[in-house]
Amino acid sequence: MWKVSPSRLEDMCTSIMRAAGAPGADARLVAEHLIENDLIGHHSHGVIRLWDYIEAARRGELIPGASPRIISETPTTARIDGGWNFGQVIATFATGLAIEKARTAGVSVVTVRRVKHIGRLGRYAEQVAAAGLVSLIFTNGGGHGINQAPFRGTERKLCSNPMAMSVPSGLAGPFLLDMATSVAAEGKVRVYGARGTPTPAGWIIDSDGNPSTDPSDFAGGGALLPLGRAEGHKGYALAFMVELLAGVMSGGGISGDPARSFSNDSMIIVIDPELFLPMAELEERSLTLTEHLKDTRLADESQPVLYPGEKEAEARSANRGGDIELPDPVRQQLVSMLRRFSLPEPEPPSSG
Amino acid sequence: MWKVSPSRLEDMCTSIMRAAGAPGADARLVAEHLIENDLIGHHSHGVIRLWDYIEAARRGELIPGASPRIISETPTTARIDGGWNFGQVIATFATGLAIEKARTAGVSVVTVRRVKHIGRLGRYAEQVAAAGLVSLIFTNGGGHGINQAPFRGTERKLCSNPMAMSVPSGLAGPFLLDMATSVAAEGKVRVYGARGTPTPAGWIIDSDGNPSTDPSDFAGGGALLPLGRAEGHKGYALAFMVELLAGVMSGGGISGDPARSFSNDSMIIVIDPELFLPMAELEERSLTLTEHLKDTRLADESQPVLYPGEKEAEARSANRGGDIELPDPVRQQLVSMLRRFSLPEPEPPSSG
Repeated sequence: MWKVSPSRLEDMCTSIMRAAGAPGADARLVAEHLIENDLIGHHSHGVIRLWDYIEAARRGELIPGASPRIISETPTTARIDGGWNFGQVIATFATGLAIEKARTAGVSVVTVRRVKHIGRLGRYAEQVAAAGLVSLIFTNGGGHGINQAPFRGTERKLCSNPMAMSVPSGLAGPFLLDMATSVAAEGKVRVYGARGTPTPAGWIIDSDGNPSTDPSDFAGGGALLPLGRAEGHKGYALAFMVELLAGVMSGGGISGDPARSFSNDSMIIVIDPELFLPMAELEERSLTLTEHLKDTRLADESQPVLYPGEKEAEARSANRGGDIELPDPVRQQLVSMLRRFSLPEPEPPSSG
Repeated sequence: MWKVSPSRLEDMCTSIMRAAGAPGADARLVAEHLIENDLIGHHSHGVIRLWDYIEAARRGELIPGASPRIISETPTTARIDGGWNFGQVIATFATGLAIEKARTAGVSVVTVRRVKHIGRLGRYAEQVAAAGLVSLIFTNGGGHGINQAPFRGTERKLCSNPMAMSVPSGLAGPFLLDMATSVAAEGKVRVYGARGTPTPAGWIIDSDGNPSTDPSDFAGGGALLPLGRAEGHKGYALAFMVELLAGVMSGGGISGDPARSFSNDSMIIVIDPELFLPMAELEERSLTLTEHLKDTRLADESQPVLYPGEKEAEARSANRGGDIELPDPVRQQLVSMLRRFSLPEPEPPSSG
């Protein structure tokens, strides 16, 4: 493993993206986003992704510095064309626009298309919560990002089509739902694969459609199953709705359209809760709810009931100021990109 | 079983509700809603519910004829106090108001509190789809309606907190998601109980928190588990968010507030899709998506991939014009209510 300080890692990632053509502020924003995910333990959405981004830029599929274009807008809505820039840059812009509109109109809906990987969806839900507003966010994987079988089907047809929701809280972090509508995100299957351990039963099928617990069966053309296992019709219905809201309504790429480059088409809904109740009352009532749910007999005394988002809030505070540990291959990728752009290399790893 | 024509059943239900104090139009609306649910096979939300409604009216908890009151509103939002009228009457009004606002403002959010059982959530999503609009609807069970354990907990703390979503389609029915965020709705467990057959493993726990497949363990103080089984943290997070949107933001009853009478507090979000793309393009793109998902190798050749809402659309067309079959106890309840109000009794059942 490689131990590195977040600030040093951020500088390295930023310099790589700048060298690949991104304006400084954009490069810094994407680097911060990736590193924050490593800090809160979401390594599948961390610095490990930078290699793919830079490769996509090299192929011309990702266009650093492209400006988002508002195709049309009303006081409550906007359609954004992301121009194939870094997804984090475009999604942050789109979320900001949705916040601005909800502040004046009370509610807003913004869609985004032609946008590369936007990373952890919860980040944008947190951006909305920090503004004192409520969010519902839906994202598909454009035409190319298929990894999930429809309920009753045995082939990849949908992306893991995630959704996020947030409500401000008076607690350590906002109330935050951030989930794939498949039984698990593809990144989690990859983590099992990297560790060489079987995935939980009920997550994947192999390329013949048989149940499997071998991550290599997924990599070899198998598929993720929808959230719910035997009740997978519910996860599938959620994934289908995400496709309609994010893929169809954005005018982006719907699942199964291989003519499209991968795009995290999205719909962002923002609501001003203070049109419904004062923030103090929202916080008080939701605290009462949280305490009511935590005050229960547990299945396992060591596993308390959490509020959605509590894990992220705890991980963020636990890791504040500490170093990040990354697998050596991630360091090797960074070194390779630094060399390609003739940038200074990091010091050797402080531990083996 | 008792066979009866929908129109005759509707007249009976309407006359009972009128006798209990409901204006004619309200009584007819609730009767239509209940009978439609029986027609499409959702018997748990059918005429079997009328007894509870009339009993609630007798106790003064349901107030037939109460007018919904708009507590406050903006061009995009409204807060409604349902005055404890029949939920179907209030939710239909609230949905109509959300439709009206979305037509002029593009997007709307309406909350409802102090409202009795609103029945099948999908009905309001269908009302929005029929208006050519998109809906997201969230409903809790006020303080009293607890039947679901939080993830990791072993006691009833939440309602089955359903959600519905709809998008217009060019198909037999709209795209329609209508689901409990628990692994199954309470009504389904009751159906297993009535049949005397075990529930699927993973649905319920008994009053000691142990896994069970005996529906009487649920009735005896057990609890429903959240959607997702081993991934129940996702169903729980959805149920929690429903509680925040529907219970907290409506100013209604949050889960675990036993001082409140049962209320199906709700949030209804409506979006005009034509601010994003023309309806013809929406229909065409979503048809392509549907065909893509159906064109897959199946796990079981007799179980095709469906679009969300396809089952409801098929059931509706299959049952058009036919009689409804109801269990004899439902008939006995109706007869008892008719007698109480000195109304004419139905003919004897046409078959045993």
